[in-house]
Amino acid sequence: MKRSPLAPSAFPTLPQIDGVELATAATAIKYHGRDDLMLAVMAPGSAAVGVLTQSATASAPVRWCRRRLAQQQPHALIVNAGNANTFTGEAGWQHVRETCEAVAAALGCRPEQVLAASTGVIGEPLPVAKIVDAVPKLASSLSPRACIWQQAAAAILTTDTFPKGATADAEIAGVPVTVNGFAKGSGMIEPNMATLLAFLFTDAAIAPTALQSMLSVVADQSFNAITVDGDTSTSDTCLAFATGKAANPMVADADSPVLDDFKGALERVMTDLAQQVIRDGEGAQKWITVEVRGAEDDRAAKVIAKSIANSPLVKTAIAGEDANWGRIVMAVGKSGEKVNPDRLEISIGGIRVTEHGRRIADFDESPLTEHLKGREILLGVELGVGGGRARVWGCDLTHGYIDINAHYRS
Amino acid sequence: MKRSPLAPSAFPTLPQIDGVELATAATAIKYHGRDDLMLAVMAPGSAAVGVLTQSATASAPVRWCRRRLAQQQPHALIVNAGNANTFTGEAGWQHVRETCEAVAAALGCRPEQVLAASTGVIGEPLPVAKIVDAVPKLASSLSPRACIWQQAAAAILTTDTFPKGATADAEIAGVPVTVNGFAKGSGMIEPNMATLLAFLFTDAAIAPTALQSMLSVVADQSFNAITVDGDTSTSDTCLAFATGKAANPMVADADSPVLDDFKGALERVMTDLAQQVIRDGEGAQKWITVEVRGAEDDRAAKVIAKSIANSPLVKTAIAGEDANWGRIVMAVGKSGEKVNPDRLEISIGGIRVTEHGRRIADFDESPLTEHLKGREILLGVELGVGGGRARVWGCDLTHGYIDINAHYRS
Repeated sequence: MKRSPLAPSAFPTLPQIDGVELATAATAIKYHGRDDLMLAVMAPGSAAVGVLTQSATASAPVRWCRRRLAQQQPHALIVNAGNANTFTGEAGWQHVRETCEAVAAALGCRPEQVLAASTGVIGEPLPVAKIVDAVPKLASSLSPRACIWQQAAAAILTTDTFPKGATADAEIAGVPVTVNGFAKGSGMIEPNMATLLAFLFTDAAIAPTALQSMLSVVADQSFNAITVDGDTSTSDTCLAFATGKAANPMVADADSPVLDDFKGALERVMTDLAQQVIRDGEGAQKWITVEVRGAEDDRAAKVIAKSIANSPLVKTAIAGEDANWGRIVMAVGKSGEKVNPDRLEISIGGIRVTEHGRRIADFDESPLTEHLKGREILLGVELGVGGGRARVWGCDLTHGYIDINAHYRS
Repeated sequence: MKRSPLAPSAFPTLPQIDGVELATAATAIKYHGRDDLMLAVMAPGSAAVGVLTQSATASAPVRWCRRRLAQQQPHALIVNAGNANTFTGEAGWQHVRETCEAVAAALGCRPEQVLAASTGVIGEPLPVAKIVDAVPKLASSLSPRACIWQQAAAAILTTDTFPKGATADAEIAGVPVTVNGFAKGSGMIEPNMATLLAFLFTDAAIAPTALQSMLSVVADQSFNAITVDGDTSTSDTCLAFATGKAANPMVADADSPVLDDFKGALERVMTDLAQQVIRDGEGAQKWITVEVRGAEDDRAAKVIAKSIANSPLVKTAIAGEDANWGRIVMAVGKSGEKVNPDRLEISIGGIRVTEHGRRIADFDESPLTEHLKGREILLGVELGVGGGRARVWGCDLTHGYIDINAHYRS
């Protein structure tokens, strides 16, 4: 698969995180000539929290994680790419258990201390033996070294065209801490709360409740603010681990000001990863930011922004570099939210197109067309109804999306 | 534009409807070498009712119709293609008025007795002079003859590749009556209650309240059960006219059994037209019927059916003739409705794919693949949750959709 034209120039350097070790292996479940299995092991006493898909047909590993996270004694995470282990009935659940038993045996912990995630085709039985066979080698090759992060990020990919990683530093009560993360996309992307697979790791000492609270809030502004195709995956999984090895004073209250700097770092990493997922949206040629202001409230603003970012007509117009702002009007109108057409202001690339419920008189379209020739497209909507605002990221809809999805089993 | 491969072989013969005259003309607002203006004149005393878009950015003619229908003295309908007169501010409203004033002057009625509909580009000022200039000739060429119906159906098209008409006969209290209708699609199609432009005409004598009630109910099962791209137009307009010339005893109660046969005819015409719109969906190569049963209630069933019919991943899989039933599972799961994965049964082309929350053991995919090579695709979902059911029609998502919409100003 050709690297997305919107991809960042290189994978960032992710530093070592004290208390985290990673390993990868190749099982050839679906992909050949690449690693497709990833194991992460966290130091004893680490906190683990998650945000998981709201799909009513959630995968077996998602259901497994939900149960394990309620118990809070995580030690490891195993992820495979190429098979989602979704809609696989009783056997699917059994396969997660077997996978986690194999990991537990290799690491000397209980299967209930192992989290799992799977991504790929829905409905195919998981060839669990291939995974179980690979686990001992995986466990023996665990490494804390910085160079392992890119390898881990690459092992969880499916139709992604580049591995996605991000890192940020912060201080908690004067103690330096680090947040690393990696994620994969890149179709079936409209997280309803988590999205896709995304894993965050920090050496900070943070109590699970505080970490969960921060993860949920930041997920809403990052992974939940992106959309490739409006399709919510059955496997969306966002997990965060805090090893405590940085030895800052343990923080239990998510609202404590001592966490402000850390929250900023978490936000930067998650936003960066979310944006990389969009930059790798299936077939994406253009990166779209939709900014909505003046809605009835923030929720309404997000509904309107999603309505625009998900509209096939808006997305194809942008693919065609056509300044067809009327389709933005349509998408605002169909959102079901409160709109006053006479106050509705549309802008493209920061250039106002409308005033008083119509196109600006003698409007010159050429600067818009120029903006649309670029890779990064900005659509602005001012509703003039209230103080609600939202920002959503999406991508255009191109022949590439159809090529990929008419033939890929996802 | 090449005729859709899903198009019916020919336009049906629509008989004369006593009390209805039609005419068409060419204004070259956008299209050249074809008629793009249509006038329908109904006998005095006709009933007129409508179902109009729920978009918050509805077009000026939609807002005009809403006001006129509340007054109930309709005499004529004028429709132009190529410009939607939407988001055109004060001027847009004025342009509808000028158009209707010109029609009223030519016919000798009041402007308030004229309904209007426009379809085409959003946000461009309507070149109203071209319409006004064409009205006198239009009014002088009105014809009640059968052959005019196809001409009228053709004059309102935009990206449609064929004109859409349907007719059905019925009896009311022993008196034969006829229902004719024509419609246009074919992008920006996910009516939220009406869709697109659709006009129904009957010689039956039916009071406006009864006609409105029947139109709303049938619209919900026909035009509101189709989707091309999930985009609700700002101009969706479905109007029905009853001239009373068949001279059946006037019916004022929509629930009267005397209307049963007529309801059936209305349903056949509207369903036929709705299906023709899907058969002309932008870029459509395959016609998809989604049947959902066993949902919590009918509303839930429709939400799930729409979730499947609108999923880009389901639509591209069908375009690729890929029996990727896992994407149907995904679309069911993301619907937000009550689902029990263990009871969820998916079928394609009538062939059961799943049982007990997983793929049927030793499943043979080849008959599915054979079904998907055809033009008419049937997707079935049995939820096992309750008694709710719904049927929705859609089409696949192809390169053609992108070709059309990356370059067409709609």
